[in-house]
Amino acid sequence: MTDIRIDPATPADVPMIRTLIRELAEFEKLLHEARATDEQLHDSLFGPNPGAEVLMARIGGEVAGFALFFHNFSTFVGQRGLYLEDLFVRPRFRGVGCGEALLRCLAKIALERNCGRFEWSVLDWNQRAIDFYKSLGAVPMDEWTIYRVTGEALKKLGGGA
Amino acid sequence: MTDIRIDPATPADVPMIRTLIRELAEFEKLLHEARATDEQLHDSLFGPNPGAEVLMARIGGEVAGFALFFHNFSTFVGQRGLYLEDLFVRPRFRGVGCGEALLRCLAKIALERNCGRFEWSVLDWNQRAIDFYKSLGAVPMDEWTIYRVTGEALKKLGGGA
Repeated sequence: MTDIRIDPATPADVPMIRTLIRELAEFEKLLHEARATDEQLHDSLFGPNPGAEVLMARIGGEVAGFALFFHNFSTFVGQRGLYLEDLFVRPRFRGVGCGEALLRCLAKIALERNCGRFEWSVLDWNQRAIDFYKSLGAVPMDEWTIYRVTGEALKKLGGGA
Repeated sequence: MTDIRIDPATPADVPMIRTLIRELAEFEKLLHEARATDEQLHDSLFGPNPGAEVLMARIGGEVAGFALFFHNFSTFVGQRGLYLEDLFVRPRFRGVGCGEALLRCLAKIALERNCGRFEWSVLDWNQRAIDFYKSLGAVPMDEWTIYRVTGEALKKLGGGA
């Protein structure tokens, strides 16, 4: 069995996290959108008011993948939930249970922190991921679509009368 | 023009917020899922570690609707975003711009807090809402589906080996 170590990221991991984010963006065909800097990541993860947390997965001392998450909130349940923003396992480390180990660790954190829900979003063409998530008991929220306002549209909406 | 007042909620608004959440749940045909208590809401909104914020909309002194939001995080952008969990205008106050006023106020908050994105989820059958959001510049993230683990599946995933 492969020895997978999962630990919370430390400030020293920031440059590697940025590398992993760019590798993930490339896989998602969204590299042009990946513009986070080391400074932004450091501030967001380890600054006075952190907006997210990261788990690092290592195999034999090498970084194999990461998970970035934060808390959302369920109005109906009246409790915070755990939202996984990014999960990534580097191609050469796939197939040995690294993604599953990260998800299990996140589910454990969700239970420890009394979160009623553990959620994440999946690209519809990523069938391999979808099959994997379903096998772990995840249910697609098919009825819901995310809407986004950004850039000029956001400025217009927020700056108008 | 209708005089719509929008203000951050105060602890005194908690019972009314719970009423509005239940009215929203009824509209979404999810009343069975709305089990938040006043105590949970008070703790989540005004406790030492708040998980969400609420804006109240009033027309002529009467509560017309509310918006509940929190911050999420965009890995690619390296910044937090604003996520609108719930937006609700009571039926008898619809059609006078209350929902739009809440959305504009939220977009303003997003800009003030340097959020790169303002997002929310919409039920696919709620065509009236979809048309309205699109008219304000929101773009559907059609390629993404949310997956959720909850209840026994979460316990199994987090409690296993």
